[in-house]
Amino acid sequence: MNIPLSIQKRIKKEITVFCKSLPREPRELYEPMQYMLSIGGKSLRPSLLLLTCKMFKGQVKDALPAAIAIELFHNFTLIHDDITDNSPLRRGNPTVHVKWNSNVALLSGDALLIKAYQELNKTPPKYLPSIFILFNDAALKVCEGQQFDMEYETKARVSIDDYLNMISMKTAALFAASMSMGAITAGASKSDCNKMKVAGESLGMLFQLKDDVLDVFGKPGKTGKQTGGDIIQDKKTFLLLKAIELAKRKTKTELNLLIGNTKLSPTDKVQRVKKIYEDLGVEEYANQQMQIYYNRFKKSLTSIKAPEKDILLNLTEALLDREV
Amino acid sequence: MNIPLSIQKRIKKEITVFCKSLPREPRELYEPMQYMLSIGGKSLRPSLLLLTCKMFKGQVKDALPAAIAIELFHNFTLIHDDITDNSPLRRGNPTVHVKWNSNVALLSGDALLIKAYQELNKTPPKYLPSIFILFNDAALKVCEGQQFDMEYETKARVSIDDYLNMISMKTAALFAASMSMGAITAGASKSDCNKMKVAGESLGMLFQLKDDVLDVFGKPGKTGKQTGGDIIQDKKTFLLLKAIELAKRKTKTELNLLIGNTKLSPTDKVQRVKKIYEDLGVEEYANQQMQIYYNRFKKSLTSIKAPEKDILLNLTEALLDREV
Repeated sequence: MNIPLSIQKRIKKEITVFCKSLPREPRELYEPMQYMLSIGGKSLRPSLLLLTCKMFKGQVKDALPAAIAIELFHNFTLIHDDITDNSPLRRGNPTVHVKWNSNVALLSGDALLIKAYQELNKTPPKYLPSIFILFNDAALKVCEGQQFDMEYETKARVSIDDYLNMISMKTAALFAASMSMGAITAGASKSDCNKMKVAGESLGMLFQLKDDVLDVFGKPGKTGKQTGGDIIQDKKTFLLLKAIELAKRKTKTELNLLIGNTKLSPTDKVQRVKKIYEDLGVEEYANQQMQIYYNRFKKSLTSIKAPEKDILLNLTEALLDREV
Repeated sequence: MNIPLSIQKRIKKEITVFCKSLPREPRELYEPMQYMLSIGGKSLRPSLLLLTCKMFKGQVKDALPAAIAIELFHNFTLIHDDITDNSPLRRGNPTVHVKWNSNVALLSGDALLIKAYQELNKTPPKYLPSIFILFNDAALKVCEGQQFDMEYETKARVSIDDYLNMISMKTAALFAASMSMGAITAGASKSDCNKMKVAGESLGMLFQLKDDVLDVFGKPGKTGKQTGGDIIQDKKTFLLLKAIELAKRKTKTELNLLIGNTKLSPTDKVQRVKKIYEDLGVEEYANQQMQIYYNRFKKSLTSIKAPEKDILLNLTEALLDREV
């Protein structure tokens, strides 16, 4: 996905070092962490952090603790979200609560969050105070977003604005924090740090919308997730909300029958909702929305004078076109 | 419980300020935090932190952020432990996962842990690095202890040493961190900070052993918990392990039949195990073990020159004699 190999390798190495540094006991606390980190993931957030740091001519070593902390935090949220959403698969592998049990997933997730803070604390002291504030604020927003996401599953009326606000917290806040932290650990100006925050936020929005599209239209072998997981769980994604907005009479009635329907088999439900999405062309609307964020991303980078910003632009284009 | 009123009031005030500072939305994220903090608790850990700080002539305001962080962290562990242990009551009130549901308890617990770090970050910068390390180390130990505690429920052989090691992590680590943080935020010498760590550790051990005793022999109206909750859950407490050690033939067979028995009614099970404890006199052994920690606590304070240390000594004696 256009992440420079050197960055990918550096993150992978640090994650390996982290995993090896974990105690062996209690096994059911530490093995799930190692498992989650070993089953891959794109390490997108730490990559963005390091790339931003490099773009501002910073030292990768100064940004690494925050990058690893962000990756650990992200994996903590995945472990806990998978319990909440009762998801069977993550990156094509059984989720932690399925492979072990919910109590193990709960506790090893907690410990992983604490480990994230331990890594964060390795940030050079001069950057630590502002990094710590950004990290906490983003972490809290992620929880708020997740809570809204849960509430929206059963809430009758959710607007597209509600949804965009929710994903700005649940997903984009961590992207925003990653990119501004990258700028901070390179000693960039406050104004540039803020621009990178906007860039990260836009990129996160784009990323989440693409995720929603891939959940339904992605190739199951590639995404490593259950196809149509969002549909099965009645997640009010951009696609569903747009479909509700566009649907006329018969289609609207059918959609209303499908949402919250627990009698239908998951496969049937996914197939029928997907058909409605296709008939209404909601994927195209999602693409248009993504384009808005892509433009916002580009705009926030315009006034930044750094030759290496092309790497970030290419990466973002690749995120728009990604299949996984 | 012999905590000076001024300290109690200060903590209560800060917790109230904290609760009022929370956003209203998402409601199911923040209301459970306010609920947990409002249903009381002794605020023992933050009190010990502030008392230690005062003992070393420190400023309470310098220690307050760490004290509040410790109290928030402690409440986070209670919310999550109650899910894991499936406990219906906490301080005489329904637990968060019962009053709301497990998903709400999981997520609001997570957010409370992050809020704890936000409070911790208000510590004066000169003390923050060492406070941050202590906090993380203790937090991780608490998770490790909780994991061992869970594993011991189904493990065939658990020694009394295993148990003492487990509670040194699950409970005593946070007491140790509280008291050493109190010393740090008063600018105490490294040697004195370490002594306070030992004192806190001993006090935590004593506190947990007393908790085990109260779980079975406490007055139900006073503890606010389900009587014999540990017995119902087959928790391998000091009492049970001592009983296993002391029991001869017939009693041993009966104990083995009772442990893990899911057919008996909880009330029956508690009654029969309690009878065995009484016949074997295990409560007295627990009292002897507590005395060991009390002596260790006193010894660690011996060489500390501070007139106010009597407050801590009296408080610890009160912990030995407490009924709740």
